[in-house]
Amino acid sequence: MRDVAVIGVGMNRWGELWEKSLRDIWTEAALEAVDDAGIDRVDAMYVGCMSSGLFVGQEHLGALLADQLGMGPIPGTRVESACASGGLAFRQAWIAVASGLHDVVLATGVEKMTDVDGGAATDALATAADQEYESYHGVTFPGLYGMMARAHMHQHRTSRRQLSAVAVKNHRHGALNPLAQYPQPVTVEQVEESVLVADPLRLLDCSPVTDGAAAVVLVPLEDVRNLTKQPPVRVAASAHATDSMALHDREDLAWLASTERAAGLVYAQAGIEPGDVSFCEVHDCFTIAEIMVIEALGLAPRGCGGSGAESGATALGGKVPVNPSGGLKSKGHPVGATGVAQVSEAVLQLRGQAGGRQVENAHWGLTQNMGGTGASTVVHLFERA
Amino acid sequence: MRDVAVIGVGMNRWGELWEKSLRDIWTEAALEAVDDAGIDRVDAMYVGCMSSGLFVGQEHLGALLADQLGMGPIPGTRVESACASGGLAFRQAWIAVASGLHDVVLATGVEKMTDVDGGAATDALATAADQEYESYHGVTFPGLYGMMARAHMHQHRTSRRQLSAVAVKNHRHGALNPLAQYPQPVTVEQVEESVLVADPLRLLDCSPVTDGAAAVVLVPLEDVRNLTKQPPVRVAASAHATDSMALHDREDLAWLASTERAAGLVYAQAGIEPGDVSFCEVHDCFTIAEIMVIEALGLAPRGCGGSGAESGATALGGKVPVNPSGGLKSKGHPVGATGVAQVSEAVLQLRGQAGGRQVENAHWGLTQNMGGTGASTVVHLFERA
Repeated sequence: MRDVAVIGVGMNRWGELWEKSLRDIWTEAALEAVDDAGIDRVDAMYVGCMSSGLFVGQEHLGALLADQLGMGPIPGTRVESACASGGLAFRQAWIAVASGLHDVVLATGVEKMTDVDGGAATDALATAADQEYESYHGVTFPGLYGMMARAHMHQHRTSRRQLSAVAVKNHRHGALNPLAQYPQPVTVEQVEESVLVADPLRLLDCSPVTDGAAAVVLVPLEDVRNLTKQPPVRVAASAHATDSMALHDREDLAWLASTERAAGLVYAQAGIEPGDVSFCEVHDCFTIAEIMVIEALGLAPRGCGGSGAESGATALGGKVPVNPSGGLKSKGHPVGATGVAQVSEAVLQLRGQAGGRQVENAHWGLTQNMGGTGASTVVHLFERA
Repeated sequence: MRDVAVIGVGMNRWGELWEKSLRDIWTEAALEAVDDAGIDRVDAMYVGCMSSGLFVGQEHLGALLADQLGMGPIPGTRVESACASGGLAFRQAWIAVASGLHDVVLATGVEKMTDVDGGAATDALATAADQEYESYHGVTFPGLYGMMARAHMHQHRTSRRQLSAVAVKNHRHGALNPLAQYPQPVTVEQVEESVLVADPLRLLDCSPVTDGAAAVVLVPLEDVRNLTKQPPVRVAASAHATDSMALHDREDLAWLASTERAAGLVYAQAGIEPGDVSFCEVHDCFTIAEIMVIEALGLAPRGCGGSGAESGATALGGKVPVNPSGGLKSKGHPVGATGVAQVSEAVLQLRGQAGGRQVENAHWGLTQNMGGTGASTVVHLFERA
């Protein structure tokens, strides 16, 4: 398989975009990525989207958006894996280029979540859990992650203060990101006084409901110099793993086995150790998720993820900055777009174009995007080429 | 890229399966394909499904069904392209094997449509059309295909009797398929006396609402002899093309440009002419669709597709049998499963295992699966290896 590079990135300002439809926000991001790459053709495209059927009454996004971009009759394929839809769309695009099938592929993600009311959004998101064994009985995602947080606090003495530190750090990073939905800094007190959603998780432990899109352009590494003036970023490794869907089937509620597996595969593919990673963008849909993810990625010992944000090790300027973009927590979480936006951030960081949130001397950037409570995880590793 | 073969096929009896859930019917088909191939491992799997979110409140099928099959933590990826979801899932599986990324891949399709009432099913299917320009204004799929039928009848003098002949032929074929939802033969009179749905289309011009699943196993062609005793069937070509989503943007309402393009690509890849095709499985969601598809595939001159079923040229025993399985019309149309079931039929035919509906001396089999009114089309060509 061929080496693949990312040469263009695009993302619109995320938020509650009531004046725009799904195709509008997607097109903004897609055109920006094409423009950033400086290309004039796309051979195929992938769209990550979790539930446009439930959110806006529109399936068949691959064809719709290829047409919208004026790129038909190119192949347009939608990929879905709940909140990992974007990461998985990127992976399929990577396979398409690495295989030799296509030379210029657009990987995109989109979700338009605010056209329905809050209860309907929660119901739509619950389709990422096991319908027969979980959602049908009324559990929601804050409830599921609340149980995971309780288990982690019980087993590993993770504290309420450590959860808060994740939110504070990510909002501090997000304040440096002009495209973030909630760039406002928050304090520990604000997090701990925010409304209780699912004990122990409070409103400011949760990522928001967001409208947004992101897009990136992939090409063979060997073609980069002929196609663009942007500094190339190499896709160094890609892995996808699954775990049991229903939380009750897991051996350990406080451990993300699919992330551990996917991370192990990418380190092996790239021939590096967790300690070599310069920064990472991870799936902090709830504060507890970031804590569990950095353990599963091997960036903290098992059970010790809670200290990262509290000590400053995972902040900008720390040992390994986690979510320099602000993460899902501050940047927003349009579920299908998140995995692609993580790639966009990794590319900007490795190009040295991340502005006020730039990680110094970044060489290896890792992205981790997961669906549900970790039933699916997609991990990618990027290298400054 | 490597040559790829299909070595296992599975499909359950399609129908209104109220006593089974989506995961039950999918598992039946998946286990049958694994058993048919005689393999004991799967490296990755793809699931084609159009709208499990709207039909059964469950997204995230890749992870759910990998777990259900006891195959976790393998990658499980859902692909959606409306009624072409199955064909596109097969194509992604083909890319995964051809690229060298995976060696044993399960391509599957599923839809559980009868857990909602008829009106809700029609609404869910309408998400395959353009929500803003078509569905929002109340048009349904029988309405869209009714307009296409009117255009074809106006431009090409296609007759009501020719539409009926497609239904009669496909039910005659389906009567030979023990897994068909409606294996009952129908007469021209029955078709023309059935209730009017969207003029000129009557109930017996329409494919039914169906619960069903299908699965096939793909491996590198060079590995076939080590893995299975089944006669290998080679994937000779694969193509995917898109067209404008909204019908009003087409140059010609009575022409399927995405099918024409995808078919042209597969003939070029395989180095054959349309006249070399031994049989084909095509997307007869409505009788008019089969007529338009055989023209776009080059099996009949433009405007002359109507005579195929009437003359017997597309019947079993005719020049090029179309839909020996019974097609969507008689076999049923669980939308996400249809494209994979077409592959299953092509493989059985090329192995000489199609029982009473066997096409004699079959060497090249073609499958054509489309989404919406042809906004996306996936075409595959198979060869007896």
